[in-house]
Amino acid sequence: MNLSHIEHIGIAVKSLENSIPYWEQVFGLKCYSIEEVPEQKVKTAFFKIGQTKIELLESTDPEGPIGKFIEKKGEGIHHIAFAVNNLEQALAETEEKGIQLIDKTPRKGAEGLAIAFLHPKSTLAY
Amino acid sequence: MNLSHIEHIGIAVKSLENSIPYWEQVFGLKCYSIEEVPEQKVKTAFFKIGQTKIELLESTDPEGPIGKFIEKKGEGIHHIAFAVNNLEQALAETEEKGIQLIDKTPRKGAEGLAIAFLHPKSTLAY
Repeated sequence: MNLSHIEHIGIAVKSLENSIPYWEQVFGLKCYSIEEVPEQKVKTAFFKIGQTKIELLESTDPEGPIGKFIEKKGEGIHHIAFAVNNLEQALAETEEKGIQLIDKTPRKGAEGLAIAFLHPKSTLAY
Repeated sequence: MNLSHIEHIGIAVKSLENSIPYWEQVFGLKCYSIEEVPEQKVKTAFFKIGQTKIELLESTDPEGPIGKFIEKKGEGIHHIAFAVNNLEQALAETEEKGIQLIDKTPRKGAEGLAIAFLHPKSTLAY
């Protein structure tokens, strides 16, 4: 597996309306895209820092993954996305190594990219 | 302020000994440096993905910042570090905008870099 760069960092927020001005005014970044991803029950806002995007995630449903995350943990960093050349192969390799996958096959995320989540119980140590 | 790239992502772990093999074997990365930072009461391990480093943080003291973080929140992502050209100026600008700083002046972090933390209460929204 070859992780080429950090594709994005997903940050759960209660309100894009409140958080977008923060990133624009405090850090001087420009929100270049707002997109709803109905499958994930989120509305997303994107910024770019070098190779990496910041993806703010506002839940559109309290029962969706981001709604439940905020309920349990509060606002904050939700996930890191690694860019790989061949996602299907990377998932197969990862599963062979005993890592629990949420998505065994790629699905469509924001910006038309193929994405897959590893289970958080399997992302820190053996 | 000009954020050029994500310098590193700091991840709190209970044990470098358990977590380093995970990052090496699952993701095919190489730990290129292990360093103790006594001021932060941590031992750190570094990996590189594109422009960005992954900094694993193991607490050397339950009363240190990472020890307390793990006690309260469990293992996981602790901070994102943005690279800036002029840290003193960036801190002054950020404070002027009403953001609460933990470090009003830069201090020395791992790898000899000048670092400063913003207060987590001030990092999501106005």
